[in-house]
Amino acid sequence: MKIHNFSAGPSILPQEVITKAAEAVLNLNNSGLSLIEISHRSKDFIAIMEEAQNLVKELLNLPDGYSVLFLQGGASMQFLAVALNLLKDDGKAAYLDTGSWSSKASKEAELFGKVEVIASSKDKNHNYIPKGYKIPADASYVHLTSNNTIFGTQIKEFPKTDIPVVCDMSSDIFSRELDFSKFDIVYAGAQKNMGPAGTVMVIVKDNVLGKSGRTIPSMLDYQIHASKDSMFNTPPVFAIYTAMLTLQWIKDLGGVAVVEKQNEAKAALLYNEIDSNPNFIGVVNKEDRSLMNATFVLADESKKETFDALAKEAGLSGINGHRSVGGYRASIYNAMPIKSVQALVDVMKKLN
Amino acid sequence: MKIHNFSAGPSILPQEVITKAAEAVLNLNNSGLSLIEISHRSKDFIAIMEEAQNLVKELLNLPDGYSVLFLQGGASMQFLAVALNLLKDDGKAAYLDTGSWSSKASKEAELFGKVEVIASSKDKNHNYIPKGYKIPADASYVHLTSNNTIFGTQIKEFPKTDIPVVCDMSSDIFSRELDFSKFDIVYAGAQKNMGPAGTVMVIVKDNVLGKSGRTIPSMLDYQIHASKDSMFNTPPVFAIYTAMLTLQWIKDLGGVAVVEKQNEAKAALLYNEIDSNPNFIGVVNKEDRSLMNATFVLADESKKETFDALAKEAGLSGINGHRSVGGYRASIYNAMPIKSVQALVDVMKKLN
Repeated sequence: MKIHNFSAGPSILPQEVITKAAEAVLNLNNSGLSLIEISHRSKDFIAIMEEAQNLVKELLNLPDGYSVLFLQGGASMQFLAVALNLLKDDGKAAYLDTGSWSSKASKEAELFGKVEVIASSKDKNHNYIPKGYKIPADASYVHLTSNNTIFGTQIKEFPKTDIPVVCDMSSDIFSRELDFSKFDIVYAGAQKNMGPAGTVMVIVKDNVLGKSGRTIPSMLDYQIHASKDSMFNTPPVFAIYTAMLTLQWIKDLGGVAVVEKQNEAKAALLYNEIDSNPNFIGVVNKEDRSLMNATFVLADESKKETFDALAKEAGLSGINGHRSVGGYRASIYNAMPIKSVQALVDVMKKLN
Repeated sequence: MKIHNFSAGPSILPQEVITKAAEAVLNLNNSGLSLIEISHRSKDFIAIMEEAQNLVKELLNLPDGYSVLFLQGGASMQFLAVALNLLKDDGKAAYLDTGSWSSKASKEAELFGKVEVIASSKDKNHNYIPKGYKIPADASYVHLTSNNTIFGTQIKEFPKTDIPVVCDMSSDIFSRELDFSKFDIVYAGAQKNMGPAGTVMVIVKDNVLGKSGRTIPSMLDYQIHASKDSMFNTPPVFAIYTAMLTLQWIKDLGGVAVVEKQNEAKAALLYNEIDSNPNFIGVVNKEDRSLMNATFVLADESKKETFDALAKEAGLSGINGHRSVGGYRASIYNAMPIKSVQALVDVMKKLN
């Protein structure tokens, strides 16, 4: 049976990426060696790392003056790295609280200095994106989470400010066109739109670094990683290679603009069904709905067993909502084909 | 042509591990989904994590009271995590300096407190293991590096002490039987004897944790990772799965004792040639020679071109020495078959 993989992450990857990744594990570039048994200092792997970095720059249209890093530890490790690299010893950091991940991020920053939560959607279990908040001009940086995987909200308009803007884009990187020159640090765990779990991409504007006045442990110092081209220590070879394949796949499709159009069509198909089918209720404020993670609940909880059985029968996998929201969550990342979204919609229509 | 892979790391893995890893990337356990697109909270992956942890406990004969973690950031991230978790706020840490990696480890610890280097082999470019040193009884812990990949030395006898013993075993874990109840923290990057780059194993005696008196960032706090079974954040799924396959391979061979015998035979074959062939000189004190990384130089540098050509012709890959030592380094980890060591010895014999 065809499985429709709606997992929130690690999540669906393009089939050709999976096939090529498996091939490289057997024999990389016909070298007679596996991708996972070669030195990271080999010509082959250095070319992979460069290709991955160049594809990021090209696909996101990054201006000069930015470094692209592939590190380990996921977005969670960047929660502290960001603070160590940017938060001035006697300074403060501004955080927008749009859910679990942003509050985990600010909690780590609090270990290193003052944190001001400039707005929060906690009052309504994060079912909207706060707007109209003020960003303090004396903060070392402002931290945003562009897409909230758990709750299904997404920032559509980013605030304008003169202080450095840091954004966790783990669950919507490469899903839409944005002006990246407006961001100073962007980080994203690979395991949603970019590749397998095991690497985190960090884009950093070089000239915001080196100003925190702190002594930073080497492994958390973005300047060190940038100066060593993400090879300060052994990088996660397989995850970076597979991320490179995914970026090539995006490029071959026509780039982020094309992917964005597909994502809009998929999300429209699903949200239209949620809004028109009396059996379902969307969880999130319409204007703040995520194009990546659609959250919805049953109007009548007693239909849960029936709906779950229909979903299982149709091969829908990973649609249970996060325990803090309940109901359902369909993650429809870049690699999700519209026919899988249609399969979900068909099941929703079947429910009486 | 058959390639003999002497890479120092990432390095050779058993062929059946490579084959099975590639299969799982295509289709895990016949689930219809790839290993790299399933949730780390899925039944399938939880079983993989448990199996990997249980195999570690079994193969190393770990007593009760130890946790086995699979984290990210490599051994280099543990350089700081160890200090944060164990070094008391007003305390000091003792480090044995046996080469680059141990001095990198102590450098990170210095950010958090006082470090005493109890002995060093720096005077002879680390070609021996210091002995007869004193370990201060008031140190929070003593840190050792069991095998020095770059220089080719290996600790054969570990010091007896009442303070916690921390050991970086990145390049010889699972290569020999040791009494692990004598260690309090052992860490090892996977990419030599355990799997692909992208995960680091940490074995920690639970009762040494929580005593440093420090506020530890979540991602560097071993207690947090232990309490969440290495799932505090998304783990590096592929690297852990492939490590599990390698551990199964060791178990199927008959365990660490059998692997140790094989390693002794391979090392004897190579070192005998180094000692009996007038064209080559071993770099390291005989009693401190590593069973994992054999370093040697040419007696007559003018023969380099000839030797390199012979090696290339025979398919020997990755035998160049590290730049800080020069000459040659043959890394003969667990997965290296003796016939590849024989291929190297044959080439050495061919040199006139």
